[in-house]
Amino acid sequence: MRQLTPTDRTTIRRKKDRGQYDVETIHAILDEGIVCHVGFALEEQPWMIPTAHVRIDDSLFLHGATGNHALRALATGIPACVTVTLVDGLVLARSAFHHSINYRSVVIFGSAERVDDEEQKAAVLHALVEHLVPGRTTDARQPTNEELRSTLVLRIPIDEASAKVRTGGPVDEPEDMTLSVWAGVIPLTIESGTPLRDDDVTHDVVVPEYATGYSRRLR
Amino acid sequence: MRQLTPTDRTTIRRKKDRGQYDVETIHAILDEGIVCHVGFALEEQPWMIPTAHVRIDDSLFLHGATGNHALRALATGIPACVTVTLVDGLVLARSAFHHSINYRSVVIFGSAERVDDEEQKAAVLHALVEHLVPGRTTDARQPTNEELRSTLVLRIPIDEASAKVRTGGPVDEPEDMTLSVWAGVIPLTIESGTPLRDDDVTHDVVVPEYATGYSRRLR
Repeated sequence: MRQLTPTDRTTIRRKKDRGQYDVETIHAILDEGIVCHVGFALEEQPWMIPTAHVRIDDSLFLHGATGNHALRALATGIPACVTVTLVDGLVLARSAFHHSINYRSVVIFGSAERVDDEEQKAAVLHALVEHLVPGRTTDARQPTNEELRSTLVLRIPIDEASAKVRTGGPVDEPEDMTLSVWAGVIPLTIESGTPLRDDDVTHDVVVPEYATGYSRRLR
Repeated sequence: MRQLTPTDRTTIRRKKDRGQYDVETIHAILDEGIVCHVGFALEEQPWMIPTAHVRIDDSLFLHGATGNHALRALATGIPACVTVTLVDGLVLARSAFHHSINYRSVVIFGSAERVDDEEQKAAVLHALVEHLVPGRTTDARQPTNEELRSTLVLRIPIDEASAKVRTGGPVDEPEDMTLSVWAGVIPLTIESGTPLRDDDVTHDVVVPEYATGYSRRLR
């Protein structure tokens, strides 16, 4: 299993046992997440945007309108920090103190660079739609050259990154184990509901299976 | 409806119509979110942590171990940026270009201050457990003084904040409206599964209703 080398920035210091540096774990979390949070700073002032992302091989890609202030700032190559967080469950301990959350998160440190090659941009946007809804690109009208030109695409290498993962049940103090309090985990998942057809879609257009059977977890 | 005054930092500039500044909307998003992302910068280097939060009145509270580096940095009063993002659905447009996500997000700019008063700390931690699992504090063993002392609690005022909300179906180009492509929204919700009992809980302890009937949306 390929491992990333922990750096000063990516070494998990608290709850060290939750730290994971293997590429497989990191990629799986990035792929399951729908949105990431991207942080950057301008003169000590932190900024953060939630945005959709897609991973291709060892790169994370972001996109937005060419006029997007945050993406334009990131495109200058200032330090960036990207986090994807998945919440898997609520951990109910016997003591309030030991309540916790089961989660899988990834943090990436790096700098973004613009993707200007139109072919590569098209490939990224294709992958982005597939990241959100696998199968969708077979139906959706593909981007025009004008649409590609009005989209800013950024690449951040996934080489300085780590994952932090909590799984399992509560960890209580020994003296609390005999308390008559229910303890365990409430599992949480993202579930899809019945697809809502846009008013203007005629009824002979069937709802695609990737919509009716949409699941984030079973990819 | 009480409105926050938009500042340079909280004014929504892109997709202005999605910007909302009323306290009711902002609070509801913060209350529904399980975790927030907290960003800050140390010498232009951005850092970000996902962590549980709780809102009480017009303040957002964070907590962690007293040794937590990120919280200790925030406690010095450096500028912080907190974001809560809820993903409500995937928006499938006829064109790849107009695919989108229905979301509700809040960003708060401000500085944290330590909460040192033990009574207030206890109240915050109580509210935090209730934020995660409403009803749980009636069962869980309450924090000891030692547990309170080993917990760092931070307060960030919610006075410079804004929400950004996208709802509804796809918005396609007029010339794409006649394409024979299904378009609409895949709604997404966070759902709870069957609570997983910790091995050491005896079977005469019944699973509480707040666990079996857990829902994030119907609070």
